[in-house]
Amino acid sequence: MKNLALMFLLFFIVSSLKAEDGHKLWLRNQNPKPVKIICSKQSATLDIAQQELKRGWQGTPGASIVLNIRNNKSIKGDGFILDTSMIQANTEIGILYGVFDLLRRQGTGESIDHIVSNPSYELRLLNHWDNLNGTIERGYAGRSIFWHNGKDSLKVTEKDKILWQEYARANASIGINGAVLNNVNASPQMMTEEILKRVKAIADVLRPYGIKTYLSINFSSPAVLGGLKTSDPFNSEVIKWWEAKVKEIYSLIPDFGGFLVKANSEGQPGPQDFGRTHADGANMLADALEPYGGIVMWRAFVYSPTSDDRAKQAYAEFMPLDGKFRDNVIIQVKNGPVDFQPREPFNPLFGAMKKTAIMPELQITQEYLGQSIHLVFLSTMWEEFLNSDTYQQGEGSTVARCTDGSIYHHKYTAIAGVSNIGLDTNWTGHHFAQANWYAFGRLAWDNKLSSNDIAEEWIKLTFSNQSGISDKNNIDWQVFFLYPVKQMMLQSRETAVNYMMPLGLHHIFAANHHYGPGPWWGPKNVRPDWTPPYYHQADTNGIGFDRTRNGSNAVSQYHEPLSSQYNDLNTCPEVYLLWFHHLPWDYKVQPKADQPLAEKSGRTLWEAICYHYENGLQQVREYQKLWDKEKPYIDEQRFSEVQSKLRRQCRDAQIWKDGCLLYFQQFSRQTIPYDIERPIYNLDELEKMDMSKI
Amino acid sequence: MKNLALMFLLFFIVSSLKAEDGHKLWLRNQNPKPVKIICSKQSATLDIAQQELKRGWQGTPGASIVLNIRNNKSIKGDGFILDTSMIQANTEIGILYGVFDLLRRQGTGESIDHIVSNPSYELRLLNHWDNLNGTIERGYAGRSIFWHNGKDSLKVTEKDKILWQEYARANASIGINGAVLNNVNASPQMMTEEILKRVKAIADVLRPYGIKTYLSINFSSPAVLGGLKTSDPFNSEVIKWWEAKVKEIYSLIPDFGGFLVKANSEGQPGPQDFGRTHADGANMLADALEPYGGIVMWRAFVYSPTSDDRAKQAYAEFMPLDGKFRDNVIIQVKNGPVDFQPREPFNPLFGAMKKTAIMPELQITQEYLGQSIHLVFLSTMWEEFLNSDTYQQGEGSTVARCTDGSIYHHKYTAIAGVSNIGLDTNWTGHHFAQANWYAFGRLAWDNKLSSNDIAEEWIKLTFSNQSGISDKNNIDWQVFFLYPVKQMMLQSRETAVNYMMPLGLHHIFAANHHYGPGPWWGPKNVRPDWTPPYYHQADTNGIGFDRTRNGSNAVSQYHEPLSSQYNDLNTCPEVYLLWFHHLPWDYKVQPKADQPLAEKSGRTLWEAICYHYENGLQQVREYQKLWDKEKPYIDEQRFSEVQSKLRRQCRDAQIWKDGCLLYFQQFSRQTIPYDIERPIYNLDELEKMDMSKI
Repeated sequence: MKNLALMFLLFFIVSSLKAEDGHKLWLRNQNPKPVKIICSKQSATLDIAQQELKRGWQGTPGASIVLNIRNNKSIKGDGFILDTSMIQANTEIGILYGVFDLLRRQGTGESIDHIVSNPSYELRLLNHWDNLNGTIERGYAGRSIFWHNGKDSLKVTEKDKILWQEYARANASIGINGAVLNNVNASPQMMTEEILKRVKAIADVLRPYGIKTYLSINFSSPAVLGGLKTSDPFNSEVIKWWEAKVKEIYSLIPDFGGFLVKANSEGQPGPQDFGRTHADGANMLADALEPYGGIVMWRAFVYSPTSDDRAKQAYAEFMPLDGKFRDNVIIQVKNGPVDFQPREPFNPLFGAMKKTAIMPELQITQEYLGQSIHLVFLSTMWEEFLNSDTYQQGEGSTVARCTDGSIYHHKYTAIAGVSNIGLDTNWTGHHFAQANWYAFGRLAWDNKLSSNDIAEEWIKLTFSNQSGISDKNNIDWQVFFLYPVKQMMLQSRETAVNYMMPLGLHHIFAANHHYGPGPWWGPKNVRPDWTPPYYHQADTNGIGFDRTRNGSNAVSQYHEPLSSQYNDLNTCPEVYLLWFHHLPWDYKVQPKADQPLAEKSGRTLWEAICYHYENGLQQVREYQKLWDKEKPYIDEQRFSEVQSKLRRQCRDAQIWKDGCLLYFQQFSRQTIPYDIERPIYNLDELEKMDMSKI
Repeated sequence: MKNLALMFLLFFIVSSLKAEDGHKLWLRNQNPKPVKIICSKQSATLDIAQQELKRGWQGTPGASIVLNIRNNKSIKGDGFILDTSMIQANTEIGILYGVFDLLRRQGTGESIDHIVSNPSYELRLLNHWDNLNGTIERGYAGRSIFWHNGKDSLKVTEKDKILWQEYARANASIGINGAVLNNVNASPQMMTEEILKRVKAIADVLRPYGIKTYLSINFSSPAVLGGLKTSDPFNSEVIKWWEAKVKEIYSLIPDFGGFLVKANSEGQPGPQDFGRTHADGANMLADALEPYGGIVMWRAFVYSPTSDDRAKQAYAEFMPLDGKFRDNVIIQVKNGPVDFQPREPFNPLFGAMKKTAIMPELQITQEYLGQSIHLVFLSTMWEEFLNSDTYQQGEGSTVARCTDGSIYHHKYTAIAGVSNIGLDTNWTGHHFAQANWYAFGRLAWDNKLSSNDIAEEWIKLTFSNQSGISDKNNIDWQVFFLYPVKQMMLQSRETAVNYMMPLGLHHIFAANHHYGPGPWWGPKNVRPDWTPPYYHQADTNGIGFDRTRNGSNAVSQYHEPLSSQYNDLNTCPEVYLLWFHHLPWDYKVQPKADQPLAEKSGRTLWEAICYHYENGLQQVREYQKLWDKEKPYIDEQRFSEVQSKLRRQCRDAQIWKDGCLLYFQQFSRQTIPYDIERPIYNLDELEKMDMSKI
């Protein structure tokens, strides 16, 4: 009889799981209860706030809630104070944020007891690498939601507006308040009147959700588009051209946010083409924007093909310019010194530039982390980065505190994430990639949040199937779904590091697609710093990039005690070992108790590499098993779509393992330990394989 | 110091392993010692015998050996008596066989103490499915050694002759004494004068090695080639045409062996096209051949597209004809009732046709067993087949005894194997596929040999690296190489059954290539008995082909007690379960202690299927590990070529497992047990995958 009862229960659970396509993200508004709203003001934003309360109220049915715009010293910017019956804020958008926070807490079962919530960063932006032809650079979830038809059809449709509104709502629900609508590799065409008209239409939809619109600009626009002879930032015609263009933009979009600029980087034009500095270029644009309150975000992602160490260059180029930028210029710096790798130490510019505002650029789209195929929760990587201590103003000078105004006081604080969304029904290609969009927004709002809490929130909002999460019936769901899935998410980035590039290895991807392995890839006509051998430096003596004082001396860019710590093999963290050191294959790696297969003392570097790749593969297999067991708790569509992607992730983890081990084995000339599964591919097959087409 | 000594020893072993490409097969003639030969007669065959002794002598240096042709009642046919100093035989070819046996024993370290060795079958043939255009049907080791240039270049070169001689020598060394030079799907062109001239050249090379030449014929040759209006075997013009053609052949090749015929089978012409029986057709040809001592091998591989059970048809068509064939006709019957599947019960014709000579047709080429990619030692399958008890003349009426003259007395006894060789340097594509050629010859000579002994012989001859196998130094080699590799070979066919089609499943291959899985494959325009669903019969109720008395009643073709044993679920061997029974997914399979993952009592059929596929995959992984450990004992080329093939075998075992489990899961609607690794492919991907091109 017990079994029968269990079967009925299971049947009930299963049959109540409606098909979901993921389009609703974490905002699924299941069975709202009635609520009374008291609000003395009216506006587009406040209308949205009230609408959201009605769509999603999970508190006491029929309860009252007051929306109260009133200054309060404990509230900063668009922050808010929250209670079960009241939301207070300085601004209308603060009220909307309070509403979303209240609804989230109702959805997750968190307490709502005089919460004061203020944003860590004033500007919390998504960067869209969307091209005007509708494609997205490093986008893996379909075409651009802004430019999907290309330039041929710039007409704004009702469908467009609905999608943009859904986008704005999702962003507002996690506190994102800015969007750069086009690729940093920007087309000069972006500044044409017809395009700007569509930008205006987008801005109009985003505005009531508190989202400002920004654009990436091409530095040579005055010449290419304006017909001038130069784009030299010191040229008065150029200055005038930009002033006029900015004026035109603000006439269309009075709250326009400003420009994002990739200059003198990877072939993009910039002030150095005219003998000017990055500061000269940024300041010219900043001066044009200043009257309107606009800003310039100037990217520090620059490197020359001839340098001895690409990792040193942002620091080398920008440190001498510290203090030379206008106060409405922010230098946008990628988290690591190379390029969004599965693991990098933080970029040494953080904390080092003291007189200039610095904003972190994170990458939400998984360019180097399995794209929309691998389940990789990036929050732990960002947490690791934000909590990295720069020591620039003594212990505790974390990247977070160096950038959020806690230590340095500049006009603006900001953070950007390169978006992972597109026209795919579920926005992000992989259902779990939604968690990265969510986590970026949550961390931008509160950079002290833990990945554990973010994952738990997201899972509850995205997958739970009950009106009240604290119901007794949900203990089963929490034990068998929430906790294991959360553990998988929290471990998933380390897993990717294991099967892609453990122990500080980096940038060993095949060719240009940045998906599969290619440690062997290095055609003669390609600049060395775009090829993996430049980074792994494997030879019969050993492997790793020597960035110590005996090598490229990149360690010197870090503040003590980090500089010495990274320089010294005995103190360099194992996770950065081959980032900073070139080591012999027989180098003895310290045993680590938490690596299941690597508990033996006295592992050699070669063995450690082998075990990391094997562990990565085995971990993905465990995720498959875990997910298969979750079938009763998930709707069929999302279950099988994630199942299918995990299968491919497992196949590709195997390809990573086999490719890297067989390639490096040529140099190590050592056996793969026999308690590791043997490769199932031959190296020559993998070298020929085009992973972008598998 | 001990380690140092060990390193030197290893270095010595490694450096002494010369590159080998496998072309020498099991005849590697390492460092022969001098020998004195006493032989009173001279002939081409005896010259070869003496040459072989000189090339390969591993006995006492300078010892004497007598080659003695003298009748002895204990010697049958081309058998021989062997001692350390004497080889005695009735025939010259018997002397040559004795020489090869002596050299083998010297190479393997077996005793040589008054051995009497007689062949089990008088005719021991290879069937080559070689086409005149140089391709080989179901050949996976390159083009035909006989027809490689096609009809455009029939000129016999010195290179041809050397290769044919090597081929003849290899065959003679294992007792093969006949070769059918062309495909059973025969071209009428085979009977043209220009082709027959090349056949004569081949026969001239093979003759001194005791190998007779045979040809497959196309039954409609009189009409197609001779221009007659019919090929009706009762037509006097047709009879005359064949008589003349046979006379022509014998004028070129006086010891020509005879014809192999595939008639009224899979689109081939035959006597039934003219309302005649198989016996009518076979006898007409037999009469033409009889004056010259030639024979007809008439294949029983016939089946009609409309029958309810293909497995029943050979028996149904041929049993009524028992006793109606000439005594120089032999019915050639494939080992199983369907078609060379990884596992079949024996064809019920064996032992059942009492008044007609029956010869087994085995398939050495691995059409359905991984082709030249999978390591599958077929000897165990043939041993299982030969030892199958038909009960036709009481207990102990094994297939071996029913066909080798022990029970029934016909003019000829014979056995045929479909060859796996081609122009590949190592003859068979996979180095281990040489073992199947070897095992076929050895079993044809002595159908009581064990696969264990055959494997051990073959490994010693093929891989050992010392002059005397019994050297003390070889204990290491025997423990760490010979025994594990032999175990792998002996287990390998069961492994393939596990990951391809366990528990009696059969013929669930994709499309026409017979390599990868295709249980789903069944286009509407293809005859049902060429599609897997005809064979597995999977539906939501269960799986398996019901051949019981309630089903197709194929069990009735077997002699009691087999018929009842197969019919009854409680006595049907588990390995034939789904061959004879359609069973529900929840059917309880008896627990088997020797299946590592399946020790739980009360496995359901679905679970048992899952564990078999998983075990198969895990076993291939173990072979990979085992082989990798053998590196110090093998030359680099053969090591890495086998290693590479094992990798592919492992990948494809995974594809088999995933494809079959995911396909059948649609019907079973049950979970794959969680202690089994999850599939890493999606079913739709596998259905689209063309395994022949992977």
